[in-house]
Formats: sequence, C-alpha cells, structure tokens
Amino acid sequence: MGAKRIPVAVLGATGSVGQRFVQLLADHPWFELAALAASERRAGERYGDAVRWVLDAPLPAAAAATLLCEATPAIDVPLVFSALSADVAGPIEEAFARAGKLVVSNASSHRMRRDVPLLVPEVNADHLALLERQDYPQGGGIVTNPNCSTIGLALALAPLERRFGVRGLHVVTLQAISGAGLGLPGMDLVDNVVPFIGGEEEKLASETRKILGRLQGGEVRESEVVVSAQCNRVPVLDGHTECVSLRLARPATRDELLAAWREFRAEPQELALPSAPARPVVYLDDPAAPQPRKHRDLERGMATVVGRLQPCPLHDWRFVLLSHNTLRGAAGGALLAAELAVARGRVPR
Amino acid sequence: MGAKRIPVAVLGATGSVGQRFVQLLADHPWFELAALAASERRAGERYGDAVRWVLDAPLPAAAAATLLCEATPAIDVPLVFSALSADVAGPIEEAFARAGKLVVSNASSHRMRRDVPLLVPEVNADHLALLERQDYPQGGGIVTNPNCSTIGLALALAPLERRFGVRGLHVVTLQAISGAGLGLPGMDLVDNVVPFIGGEEEKLASETRKILGRLQGGEVRESEVVVSAQCNRVPVLDGHTECVSLRLARPATRDELLAAWREFRAEPQELALPSAPARPVVYLDDPAAPQPRKHRDLERGMATVVGRLQPCPLHDWRFVLLSHNTLRGAAGGALLAAELAVARGRVPR
Amino acid sequence: MGAKRIPVAVLGATGSVGQRFVQLLADHPWFELAALAASERRAGERYGDAVRWVLDAPLPAAAAATLLCEATPAIDVPLVFSALSADVAGPIEEAFARAGKLVVSNASSHRMRRDVPLLVPEVNADHLALLERQDYPQGGGIVTNPNCSTIGLALALAPLERRFGVRGLHVVTLQAISGAGLGLPGMDLVDNVVPFIGGEEEKLASETRKILGRLQGGEVRESEVVVSAQCNRVPVLDGHTECVSLRLARPATRDELLAAWREFRAEPQELALPSAPARPVVYLDDPAAPQPRKHRDLERGMATVVGRLQPCPLHDWRFVLLSHNTLRGAAGGALLAAELAVARGRVPR
Amino acid sequence: MGAKRIPVAVLGATGSVGQRFVQLLADHPWFELAALAASERRAGERYGDAVRWVLDAPLPAAAAATLLCEATPAIDVPLVFSALSADVAGPIEEAFARAGKLVVSNASSHRMRRDVPLLVPEVNADHLALLERQDYPQGGGIVTNPNCSTIGLALALAPLERRFGVRGLHVVTLQAISGAGLGLPGMDLVDNVVPFIGGEEEKLASETRKILGRLQGGEVRESEVVVSAQCNRVPVLDGHTECVSLRLARPATRDELLAAWREFRAEPQELALPSAPARPVVYLDDPAAPQPRKHRDLERGMATVVGRLQPCPLHDWRFVLLSHNTLRGAAGGALLAAELAVARGRVPR
Repeated sequence: MGAKRIPVAVLGATGSVGQRFVQLLADHPWFELAALAASERRAGERYGDAVRWVLDAPLPAAAAATLLCEATPAIDVPLVFSALSADVAGPIEEAFARAGKLVVSNASSHRMRRDVPLLVPEVNADHLALLERQDYPQGGGIVTNPNCSTIGLALALAPLERRFGVRGLHVVTLQAISGAGLGLPGMDLVDNVVPFIGGEEEKLASETRKILGRLQGGEVRESEVVVSAQCNRVPVLDGHTECVSLRLARPATRDELLAAWREFRAEPQELALPSAPARPVVYLDDPAAPQPRKHRDLERGMATVVGRLQPCPLHDWRFVLLSHNTLRGAAGGALLAAELAVARGRVPR
Repeated sequence: MGAKRIPVAVLGATGSVGQRFVQLLADHPWFELAALAASERRAGERYGDAVRWVLDAPLPAAAAATLLCEATPAIDVPLVFSALSADVAGPIEEAFARAGKLVVSNASSHRMRRDVPLLVPEVNADHLALLERQDYPQGGGIVTNPNCSTIGLALALAPLERRFGVRGLHVVTLQAISGAGLGLPGMDLVDNVVPFIGGEEEKLASETRKILGRLQGGEVRESEVVVSAQCNRVPVLDGHTECVSLRLARPATRDELLAAWREFRAEPQELALPSAPARPVVYLDDPAAPQPRKHRDLERGMATVVGRLQPCPLHDWRFVLLSHNTLRGAAGGALLAAELAVARGRVPR
Repeated sequence: MGAKRIPVAVLGATGSVGQRFVQLLADHPWFELAALAASERRAGERYGDAVRWVLDAPLPAAAAATLLCEATPAIDVPLVFSALSADVAGPIEEAFARAGKLVVSNASSHRMRRDVPLLVPEVNADHLALLERQDYPQGGGIVTNPNCSTIGLALALAPLERRFGVRGLHVVTLQAISGAGLGLPGMDLVDNVVPFIGGEEEKLASETRKILGRLQGGEVRESEVVVSAQCNRVPVLDGHTECVSLRLARPATRDELLAAWREFRAEPQELALPSAPARPVVYLDDPAAPQPRKHRDLERGMATVVGRLQPCPLHDWRFVLLSHNTLRGAAGGALLAAELAVARGRVPR
Repeated sequence: MGAKRIPVAVLGATGSVGQRFVQLLADHPWFELAALAASERRAGERYGDAVRWVLDAPLPAAAAATLLCEATPAIDVPLVFSALSADVAGPIEEAFARAGKLVVSNASSHRMRRDVPLLVPEVNADHLALLERQDYPQGGGIVTNPNCSTIGLALALAPLERRFGVRGLHVVTLQAISGAGLGLPGMDLVDNVVPFIGGEEEKLASETRKILGRLQGGEVRESEVVVSAQCNRVPVLDGHTECVSLRLARPATRDELLAAWREFRAEPQELALPSAPARPVVYLDDPAAPQPRKHRDLERGMATVVGRLQPCPLHDWRFVLLSHNTLRGAAGGALLAAELAVARGRVPR
C-alpha cells in the first residue's frame, strides 16, 4: 500500500459495534476515518457528545471531535462500514451501493442474498466473486460480515471441513453481553443465564451453510452440514464460548485435527492484511482453556481460540471454542473483509 | 408417620452442602437433627461459630447452638446424611454402615459400587433393593445421591426413556458456583466462564447410565444410553442450566414429549414424601425460560424445569433444563432418598 | 377493615416499579387491583403481553390477563399508585388529583412541592396534614414516596434524630441496579462500579431535610441536618447499601443508639398496617452484616437493616445500612403510605 | 543503569500478589528474576505446575520453567520481594535482612515498626532514611509497601496535604476481589457486597498517618490527620474505588485543588524510575469517572485516578479515587520502592 489512505465512513457510529469500528479505524494503516454517520436527529452533534462510549479503550480524540452526519450517499468516500441495526440497514446500504460505494456491513439484512458474499476471509475469500453478480454501478457493492457467533465457529470448522469433511454438529453457545448492544437490561444478567437470543440459533445454522458453501458457476452452493445450535446469554463482557460436538465425513486422529488447526493459513495471512491474525485458529493445551477473560484477546481478538478437544462418545469429536464477538465477530471481521476487497482491487484508490 | 421423629446426623456439616442439610432439617416433619459432625479439630465448637454460613436463609438457632462432634459411629442415630468431601467420605461412611446405620451420601465415593443404589427416587426407586446385597449389620447400609448435574438430567430423561427410549444425547452444562463448594476463587468468575469441572463430564455419562439401568436378578444392568457431556462453570449462584440434544429410540411428537413430562409421577408423589415435588418435571412455555434466578425455586427447588423444546436437525429433539444444584442436586435429593428408605421400612423407627 | 376492598389503579405498570406494585397488590388485604395503565400506544394490550417481567416472583395470572388502559382520570378508582417516570408524571398525576383521586406517587415530580407530603410513614406521618393545603376537589390529593436511597437512610436516622439530634452526616451509597429501571446497560456493571447516578446525591440531601422537618403552622420546616452524599451503582440486583458517618447534637453511648433503633415503633406499627414491618429498623450484630443478598428481605423487605455501628474518629458514629430499594424504597413504601392515608380516613371507602 | 541487571527473588510466588511480581519482573530493565520461593512442600516443583495462575496476562515462559525453592536466606540475591502472607512473613523477612539482603515487602508484619519505612515513593521517599536505624548487616534491611487501599489514598492526599494541609477525612472503599487473594469464596460476590474486610479500616487510618508523617531527628512523627474508613468488598476484579470527603487546614478553590494534583511530581518522576507513572495523580473531568474497568490501567496501573471533585456541604471537598490494587497497590508499588532504593544506592550492584 502507498502512503495515501482510503477515506472511509462508519454508519451507525454511536452503537457498540460502531464504537469498535471507530476504535479500530483510529490508527489503521490503509483506511482513514472520514465520516461518522448516525440518525438524522443527531446529525451535527460532536461524536464525543452523542456517543455513550462503552469500550474500555479511550475514545480517540479525532473521532470525538468529528461532527456526525446523516447516513446518505452524499458522503464522499469509496468504502463504507455499516454498523446499522438490521431494521434500518437494508435500504440505506442499498442506497450507498447504488451510489457506487462498497458497503461492508455487519448487519444481517443482506447476508443471505444469493448475490451477496457472506465473508470470513480465511474461509471463503473466493465468494467475493459474487460482487460480479450485483447490479450496482462501478465501485458499488455489498459485502456482509456473518453473525458474531457464526464467525468463530466457521473459523474452527474450515480447516476440519477441508481435510476431513464436517457432516453435522451440535453447538451450544455461551454468549457475551456486548453482542446484545447497549440495550440489554443489566438485571437479567446478575446471577442468571438467559437461554434465548432471538434468531441466533437459526443464523448459526443457515450462515454456516452459506460460508462453507462452494462457489460453482458464479453461485454459492450451500454446504450440507447440519448445524443444531442452542444459544445462551451469560454474564461475560466480551467473548463467545461455544461447545461443539461434531461428526466428520472421514475419520481423523487427534493429532490430525490439531495439525489441521495449527497449519491453517489462508489468503489474509499470505497477503499479510493489516487485521489478519498470524494464526487464525489457536489451540490451547490446557484443560481449563479457553476462558473468555483470559484468552479473548489472543491475536488481537482476531483468532478463534480452541481447547478441550476430546473424542465424543456420541459423535466423533468435541471441543470448546472462544471468539471475541465485537472484534473478530463484528468490527474486526468487517475490517478484514474490507482489507481483502482492497487487496483484490475491489476498491478504487 | 407418627409424631416421633427419627434422630439424624449430618457429617461434613460446615461445608456448603452440609449447610443445606442443616437448613432443610431444621423443620423436617420426619427427621430430627440430633448431631452435627465436622473434622476432629473443630469438635466441641458451637456450629454457629465454626461455620462460614453462605446461605441466604438465616442459620437456624437450634443448629447454631449445637456443639460439633467427630464423625465417628459413636453418634447414636439410625440415619446419617453425609456431606463429606470425596477424599475422606469412603472409609467414614463405611464405618457408619458397619455400625448398623443407614448412610445417605452426597459424596461420590460409593456411587458406582455395584451393590450401592444411586438413587433418584422418581426414577429408580426399585434400585433400593441393592441394599440387600450390602454386607452390613441389620440397619446398616449406604445409599448415594448422584452428582448435582446428573440428577436434573435424569429427571428430564426418565419420562422420555419410559415412553420412547433414549438412545443418546449431547449435553452442555452451565453450572452454578455453589456446586463448587466454598473454595472456588471469585476471581475466576467475574467476566468469565470456566469450561472445565474436574471429573464432571465423566460422572454425567456413567451415573446417568447407572440411574437409568434396570434391576435384573438383584443387579443393575446399566442403560446403554450414550451421554456426551461438556461442563462449564458460569457466574450464577444456584441452578445448573443444561442444553440437551437427544436421539430417541421411537419417534415422538412434540405433544407426546410434553405429555410425558407433564404426566410424570412416581413413588415419591404417590407416597407424598415430605420433600417430593408435586411435579417432578415442570415445562415452561416461554421462549426465554428456564432461567436460573427466576425458576430454580419452582417446586421448592425439587423439580427439573424444562423449556425450549424444539426439533433438532441433527438428532431428534433439543431442549433446555434447569435444576437447583444444592436443593434437588444435593441435600434435597438426599433427603428425598432417605424419606423413600424410611417409607419402605429401611430405617428402624 | 371490612371485607370490601378499595379498587386501585397502577400508572406506569410495565416498568420495574410498576411490576412491584402489581406483585404486591396481587394479594393485598385492603386494595383490589382494578386497572393497569401504560402509554397510549399500549392501551388495549394484555398486560402479560406488554410487560417484560423482570421480577423473580411469577407474574400474577389475574394481572397478566388485564387489558392495559390509558393513564387518564376516566379510570374509576379513588386511589392511584403512580410508577410513572419523572418526565411525564407531573401533569398526569395532577389530572388525577383534580379528578378527586388520591395519588400516591413514586415519581420525583411533586416531592419537593411545599404542599405535598414526602412520606415515610414511621417518620413523618403527621406530614399527611399537608393534604389540607392542596387545592383539589374532595378526595383528590398527591402524596409522594421519597427516592429509594433516601427512605432507608431516613428510617435509620429518625430514631437517632428524636433522641439525640442529628447534626450532619456523610453517606456513601452502593446502589443496586434494579433502581435504574430496565434501561441500565448490562455492560457497565460487569467488573465495574459507576460512581454517578444523576440527581441522586442532591435528592438524598434535600429529601432527607424535608422528611425530618417539623410540621409547624401547617407547613413543614425543613430540618437543618447537613447531608453530604456520594452515590455509586454496583453489580447487585436489589438492596442499597449505605455507609454513614454522622455527628449527633447530644452525646450517646453505643447502647443508647442500639436501644433507639431497637425500640423504634411508630404509627404504622401501632395501626398494624398490612405492609408495616414489625421492626422498622433491624440491627444485626455480625461484623460482616448487612449484606444485600442475605438481608434485603428481612421484614419482607420493609425494614432498614443496620450493622457495624462503631465510634467514628472524625465524627461521632459510623454504621452501615441496607434497604430494599424496590420494596421499601419504592412500591412497598408507597403502599404503606397509602395504607396510612386509608387508616386516617383520607380515602373514601 | 548499566546493562547488568540485579538478581532478585520473589517470596510467596504462587499467591496472587506473587504472580503480579512474576509478571512485572519478566521484563524489568533493572531486575532479573533469579529465584521463586514458596512453601517447603512445593520446593522442587516447576513454578508453572505449582501455580494456579489467575492473571489475564499469560504466565511468562521463563518463570514457568523455574523450579521453586524454599524461602531461606540461602537464596543468593541482594534484593528480595516478599509477597508472603502476614502470618508467616515476619520471621522469614527478618532472616533475609539479617543475611544482608534488602527485603521489599508487601506484607503487613513490619509496616508499623518505628524503624521500617512504609514507602509510597512519591510521598515519603525521605522515610528511606529509617533504614539507618535498622540493626542489620551491610546491605540488609526491610522496606514495606502499604496496604492496597492506603496507597491510592495517600497519593491523592499528598499533593493536598503539602499545599493546604489535610485535617481529617471520611473514606468509604469499594474494593476489588483480587485483593482478597485466591481464597475469597465466589458465592459471596454474586449479587452481593460485603461490608467488612478484616483489619482494613484500622490499616487505612494508621498507615496513612505514618506515610504522611514527617521525618524529624531520624524518626517519623506521624501526621495528625484523622482518617475514618469504612471498607466494602464489591464484585470487581481489579481496582479499588474510594469515596472521600475531607476537611482542609487552609481553604482552597477547586482550581487550586486540581492544580495540586495536576502538578504533582516527585522523586520517582524526576529519576524516571522504570515503574514510575508520568502522572502520579490523573484527574478525569467526566461526571461518571473514575470507573474500575475503564480507568484502572491508566499509567500502567500506577496512578491514582481521581474524579467527581465537588464542594462537600459537611466538610470542605469530596471526590472519588480509583487505584489498581494489585499493580500500584501491591507488586507495582513494591517494585517502585525497590527502584527508589536502588537509585539511592541502597542495593549493592
């Protein structure tokens, strides 16, 4: 990359995912935070005044001083990160794409569209080709980032899928509260667990099938992996834990599985994308790992951390994974997707 | 029952399970708390001074004033509840049995002995017959209470097993910290989950097979149900949540499953044992149930609370259960087992 | 009281304080829950569908089936409990008073009005006389309940004020999250304390002065007690803890202070009002008491629980108090105030 | 400092403070971790096997591989950090001092000895002169680090004491659980606050008087500041919050107080000691600051973070402070004290 950075905008900048975008973009080598957009009634306010900053890292001074604008395609940048909520994201993101901008979205609105890549750059970088099928002007397009609980799972599955095939799995999640945005009542999470997250169990199944799908004739043929998910909210700040029991297509030894994870490298690592983890999957050989507070920040929160691999008497193998839900699972994952798009020349410089 | 109550002792009375025994026995219609035993160095101390009381309910005054004694068979009662830790329980419980006392134990030491009942009174009351095989003097014997995470599962499985057969299951637990006794460091459970509880995953599998086993020729033939368990500790005070996906031997509709749970009644209900829940399994038709803080005390903490029954794309059905780990899962379950033994004439009055 | 109960309404019934009213009124000997009011857009919905029930106790079935109405004086009851938020409570409560209804309000809107009683029934029952000064039709009037952190403090101070005089005090609160309603982000209260609650420090000072004030010539002359408060939000579900150091007007021994609390009884106890605690102040002689989870429910959550009375090297004495913020500190306190008004003939039967 | 580092030992290396020493010494520019000592029965074990590592930062590999030794003066290092518990620290630390080693201790055993400095390097560096009064061989001596809740308070008070004099104060602490070591039961800190920490209230008073005392004629004359402390344990991992109301000897404006904190620099800053914070006191001008999770790591956990300065109607001023209890309040503070001793030539190189 040359010295000149690409100006980018964040839509939905005041929410919790929006804040992560602002944090990660404060010091990004390729991207320059040029605009922060929020709802109409906030336009004109200083970001620092409008936001209820919840991250531990301090609010970057430059962002704090930025005046919020409305989320309209008048924003003059070629690349837009969307942290909009699903109930408004659809048409706004479309408008930006029609205006010739590449939208990398964390919202669920367009994820399952047949012509929209649902991208985990280490897993299905080739799905970027779906952009060709989108009917937007030059430079315009929509790329989506999967659901926070899906990304960590997809990263752990991909190396196994390639070498041994994954037939099906039962996964139970213990999800952090940051994924619920600012609105989750604190009262529900003192001395409690909530065994329900609206739509999450369905997303884990359908998104995993799309991500692991194969590109054939310009279309993604969904994987036939059967995913049964049960999702819980637990009193953890960041980091989704997922307990997985899975059935493989071909037998594998413990060492082969560990090797598949250990040796897993893909395009983001080869291209040394700025947000790419050196190791997309990190296995910890400690019976009490992974733990959210202790391991969520490994590889700057961009890896899936796996532990407790054991033979499963019911299926073939079981293990526990941990993924940072607002880094890899949201803003960080979207940044990595955007970096891939840039490296592949999908964004005009 | 007549007016005269049976004098009982609690071994290991200062620990967290011991405290639950003391609480539940303070006002029991059949049993009278006659002795509290702890380690030798504490003998002679007032219970109220020796105990670090952790329950929300106040320490009963009569128990507080009781002087602790040593855990030796000199204690003159026919029925003994053991809340000893597994590293010391074995020989002490044996000594009591050899002295002609019935020991109802919450410790794991004797659970898997072929001649010792592992009792969930609604599920395998007939296993009490194993007492005949024990070689102790008149009145002596050992009955055990399963592990806290096993009991809740066994109660939910039993009605399904009877009507449809259970082939196998994957269960992921989210276990409360009270089950870890007083020694669990608080630091591990702020903003964290620990995906490891020593020995728990094995116990869930082996104990479930024994509990669901059939008594044949005076022996228990273990069930062949395949149980794969992954166990986590979460920041909840009381109440183990368990996410279950299971395969049945015979097909069943949702209504049939719900009916099996709803109609489930067994000997404790028929005998109206003092600690028996009116409904051993309570199904809640609320997408966000069961939740530990809100539902653990249903049926005085003696029921398994089930919710979120859904078809499972991988197996047949999945659901979430909740069981109070120190009531039904420990002291309360042991009391119910003792009540069954008394009702069946196993304890001299 | 005769057998006929007084029909009452709850305004703001879906919020967390409104839920407590619904819970406490489900089985009240004097009052009958006749109407539940919420915002206009919810009118017509079943309460059970509209509410996001956060209490551990189950939602009463009769209330669940009640259809929500709008908060207008057309509701035909003589007594109204207001759990409205302060930004809307003012004019709505006025409208009910003008329509000849007695409003007992938990909102702050009218608390500091010179003609409105700010009532803690054990402390300033005589302030009810302020109702004479209100210019509403027969039966109409407004009575307010103090802020949740003020009530517990006022109960602990009143007996000391009467016997020894209280000159001033520094109080630091550790407040539960239920007091923040449903909107407090859970993220702020994992591994954290927030040293700020908007307006709370001011309310503790000004409300305490009014409550401890004397009725003279039909007016309340505020007490001159100096109250300096620092308020914190802590990860506790229910129960405000307050650490107090105070200066007395006249010297007192430890025994005299304990006696003042122990012997404290007032009109609610003499009248045996249904919600009155037998002991308004309970002192616990345990170095580690009071603790929210263990002691908040003493006297059904209607007492101030005090402990750790010690000489203070800076002032005269220091102690720790605990008060249940949504029972005594909100709905329960308002019910007690209403019961006092009824007992004094302020509500037409 | 030259390139050669001073070999040091940590006594009590497996506890939570010992772990912080190990973490901070892993990469220290002046000190080289040469020995890790624990109880006799652990001697010979690998540190990595013996320790139950609770820190979020990973256990340094070199330390993990170190074999534990016994805590005897045979350890051949000139400088020793003691993280021993108070019940054993006294005689062991003495033995090291008599063997000609400088002991920097976090234990309370020797803190109040008239010939032992109780050091907060920014506040009373001159107290190091007390070492002259200790009767140990050349190189031998004992320096102590104050209690974790005292250090943060002393740092906030010192600049005010110098400019305006501090007469007295009431302080209420909300202390993190890491300060309680590994032994605090998790059950006490779910949905709860414990208003009692054994000995803490007394230490805060007596240690503050010693730290703020003046060295006169080779002795420390204790300050006459009156400190009244009430101490609570709250469910926070790291970071003690303290709410302070204080009376000054001379009047000061808000700006003067802020300037006193802002301009506060002392010997550790002038000498640029490796562990010294650039700003010993950081004032945050945000109504909701300081918060433990968000601000405890400012200045690498070595500053006292202050906020919410307001006039106090009872005394003169009130504010809230935050101090990282296991960094500045324990291992980090002890390291800074040792660095000061080295810079002053008290440790042979």
